[in-house]
Amino acid sequence: MFGKILYPTDFSEPSQKALDSVRRLFQGCVEEILVLHVFDRRELRNLATVGGIIGKYPIDLDEEFNRLESEHLTKVKKIVDDLKSVGFAATGIVREGIPLREILNVADEEKASVIVLGSHGKSNFEEVILGSVSEGVIKQSQQPVLVIKRDTRRRG
Amino acid sequence: MFGKILYPTDFSEPSQKALDSVRRLFQGCVEEILVLHVFDRRELRNLATVGGIIGKYPIDLDEEFNRLESEHLTKVKKIVDDLKSVGFAATGIVREGIPLREILNVADEEKASVIVLGSHGKSNFEEVILGSVSEGVIKQSQQPVLVIKRDTRRRG
Repeated sequence: MFGKILYPTDFSEPSQKALDSVRRLFQGCVEEILVLHVFDRRELRNLATVGGIIGKYPIDLDEEFNRLESEHLTKVKKIVDDLKSVGFAATGIVREGIPLREILNVADEEKASVIVLGSHGKSNFEEVILGSVSEGVIKQSQQPVLVIKRDTRRRG
Repeated sequence: MFGKILYPTDFSEPSQKALDSVRRLFQGCVEEILVLHVFDRRELRNLATVGGIIGKYPIDLDEEFNRLESEHLTKVKKIVDDLKSVGFAATGIVREGIPLREILNVADEEKASVIVLGSHGKSNFEEVILGSVSEGVIKQSQQPVLVIKRDTRRRG
């Protein structure tokens, strides 16, 4: 029996695919699903810098941050509600910070039994590309990590 | 609910640790555990070559192969019996071949829902070293892969 499983999501398609597998695999086998989104403020700063350099738009960082934060909260809440509607216990967490670090922190704090990650695609060699956050989690987490493939087509 | 899970083992300590986690996590949540050992005949050849070069011992490859095969069958059977004794359905498989390739083949043939792998240790950077077979399985398998850490001590 799995205790709490931690499902970090960046709302990307691979993350969504991983969630589909979570719903299928863990039905009846998990106490609670923690849905985590880490909001990386650095991205916002990069955006502001680019905006400043090319002079295309002025950006109010605080306003933009609040807008994005509320957008992320809504998305996490939707995932949590969907999970609850099919019988899971689920809790949403939104954090600001560096995604890799926050995923590891939450996994430790919440004593997650497993971290579930989606893979990002396939390279020219038909191998799965993990993405740097996933690779970091696999290498640095103390918890077991379940890597879920986006593409389940047969190898050539 | 997990269907069949594939647990490949090289009988190493990280493999054993992974098995402990399997027993803890999947109790009541899995149809069957497939215990796979792949016997890599190339290792035997290397041994014979080294033996020949340094002239230390003559080696009868066929005899040695039969001896090892029977030893591996015994070890796999012991794991299967242990799993059965705590209530799991379990089946043992011993194959000859290249480990990565055979793990992927068995996962496909048996329609495993998850492949469970142990990690091999930590580098100087306190990161988990996966080992080339594990890395290959993560990158090339179609199935979700559960990576289980050997060392669960707190990061520094």
